[in-house]
Amino acid sequence: MSAVTSTRIVLASRPHGEPSEDNFRTETVELPDLADGQVLLRTVYLSLDPYMRNRMNAGESYADPVEVGDVMVGGTVSQVVDSRAPGLPAGTYVLGYTGWQSHAVADGTAVRVLDPDRAPLATALGVLGMPGFTAYAGLLKIGQPKAGETVVVAAASGPVGSAVGQIAKIHGARAVGIAGGPDKCAYVRDQLGFDAAIDHRAPDFADRLKAAVPDGIDVYFENVGGPVTAAVLPLLNLHARIPVCGMVSQYNVASDPEGPDRLPGFMSLVLVKSLTVRGFIQSEFVREVYGDFERDASQWLAEGRLKHREDVVDGLENAPSAFFGMLHGKNFGKLVVRVGSEQD
Amino acid sequence: MSAVTSTRIVLASRPHGEPSEDNFRTETVELPDLADGQVLLRTVYLSLDPYMRNRMNAGESYADPVEVGDVMVGGTVSQVVDSRAPGLPAGTYVLGYTGWQSHAVADGTAVRVLDPDRAPLATALGVLGMPGFTAYAGLLKIGQPKAGETVVVAAASGPVGSAVGQIAKIHGARAVGIAGGPDKCAYVRDQLGFDAAIDHRAPDFADRLKAAVPDGIDVYFENVGGPVTAAVLPLLNLHARIPVCGMVSQYNVASDPEGPDRLPGFMSLVLVKSLTVRGFIQSEFVREVYGDFERDASQWLAEGRLKHREDVVDGLENAPSAFFGMLHGKNFGKLVVRVGSEQD
Repeated sequence: MSAVTSTRIVLASRPHGEPSEDNFRTETVELPDLADGQVLLRTVYLSLDPYMRNRMNAGESYADPVEVGDVMVGGTVSQVVDSRAPGLPAGTYVLGYTGWQSHAVADGTAVRVLDPDRAPLATALGVLGMPGFTAYAGLLKIGQPKAGETVVVAAASGPVGSAVGQIAKIHGARAVGIAGGPDKCAYVRDQLGFDAAIDHRAPDFADRLKAAVPDGIDVYFENVGGPVTAAVLPLLNLHARIPVCGMVSQYNVASDPEGPDRLPGFMSLVLVKSLTVRGFIQSEFVREVYGDFERDASQWLAEGRLKHREDVVDGLENAPSAFFGMLHGKNFGKLVVRVGSEQD
Repeated sequence: MSAVTSTRIVLASRPHGEPSEDNFRTETVELPDLADGQVLLRTVYLSLDPYMRNRMNAGESYADPVEVGDVMVGGTVSQVVDSRAPGLPAGTYVLGYTGWQSHAVADGTAVRVLDPDRAPLATALGVLGMPGFTAYAGLLKIGQPKAGETVVVAAASGPVGSAVGQIAKIHGARAVGIAGGPDKCAYVRDQLGFDAAIDHRAPDFADRLKAAVPDGIDVYFENVGGPVTAAVLPLLNLHARIPVCGMVSQYNVASDPEGPDRLPGFMSLVLVKSLTVRGFIQSEFVREVYGDFERDASQWLAEGRLKHREDVVDGLENAPSAFFGMLHGKNFGKLVVRVGSEQD
């Protein structure tokens, strides 16, 4: 077999604040021959997720940054093109983490076989994948909603927020979603079955949120930060829990914004309300509850209790602009890039 | 028996910012006759604690505020003067919560018998009482230090901080204390056995703290806030835990200080470091671990592994000034007011 090339998008430079096309560069490279145990993969879907913005920065985080010159990271659904790995014949669909590129060589042990008849392939990157698990683990292990409690989540039409609210409902809690614009709010309320959906663009957003939580907020699943968080804080109940899985409004902020300084007041709130604030990354819960998640999420999906929506962008070359848009809430549903067709 | 009077200090008005003598008023009232099941108490020691500053404010907290005109609350060691309660004959010493007054009528069920031969009476308000339990529960249930980890606590010569560090040491962790001035630092290091003690008044405080925690900070027991917290934050390790039991530097702050606004950066830190920040009041852990605390603390005290120090002020009339001083770290050890002599 002659050498295979991969078209890939690498980090060209680190953004200072808002990222732009200049921070990316497209390259075409020849892939090495397969070693024993390896597979050649053709990317079908690339997942775009807010955490990727953090990986573009240098410095400490829960995960290593992408180095300048390296392929941008990301979860992928791929098809095996050539194989020297047992149990992974050509044609097999797999979940991997091969990033923003058209083809890749991977160890067979680093991918996971997907059954395209069990669920649509792209769900492995969304409701049945990392975002769904983030919602499941963060809500149930940290948020621990009880029946009758109120759970609030932003980006409620997105893959994490939509699962948070629906899983909260399944556990008997009240779910209030925050989303941008009337279409997303209607979807969150009417399609996903949240008890209420509030448009954060409304001028009286804080008042609307307050009216939507007459018994206060017991769990605030934090994935955006910014003005949404500011509106939530005064509504938190005693012993409220705040799982923090993302701060998408802050990822492009290069330095502390102007004052007043709300940190002392926040810490006092943590004290007087006996709050629990807990940052997390889903991987820390994999060993403990991934099995439970797979069982529950598959069942809820099959029963129609866990709905999902994909926002599919065609072509790897459109990944950067789709990514920038996502950081400003322009996607509607789980954002994936169709890098190649499902059938080869 | 003729009517007994009580001299008491009531909340005269709510402070805006720093409290002053004007916020208190001394009254003398006649106490009612004892009903069945009640005891007449003569206060021996009154505990002064930072949480009392919060109770002077209106508004929501973990506990109801003291109403204007009501006696200031506080833990007390008292002696029974007259009794209509079984098992509480005159002469018995009890732990109660009768507040800033010389005498009180209390239900026998609301007090707890103390054995003056078992431990000095004032320890029931300190190392063997609420402050000791705050340290024990917050450190072990929330902080959960592992052997070899680093625990940092401020107000380290005070009743909570001193117990936090010593209990951390008993559990095999490294203890670094922060205190104000060379005398307190020497006590924390040489008498209490902390691994290091840092003077927060030193101009290079943040650098000294950094040098004292070469492996970073795994548990920061938060009881002060302000510049100490600011110096701690950059040193926190992945998965660090922050039990928040007090914010004494903030209790007199009436509004958000000038910017920049550090809250977004703090929430981002919570995320990227997977931090746990948990406000608490000791009472929520009483059912679960008070028995363990009593057993452990008594044993450690008897073995000399849990040292303590009282700062005794004479006379109820000096309670307000002692209280103001405590809010600025002027006490050295557990602050108690000797309201009456131990022997009547």
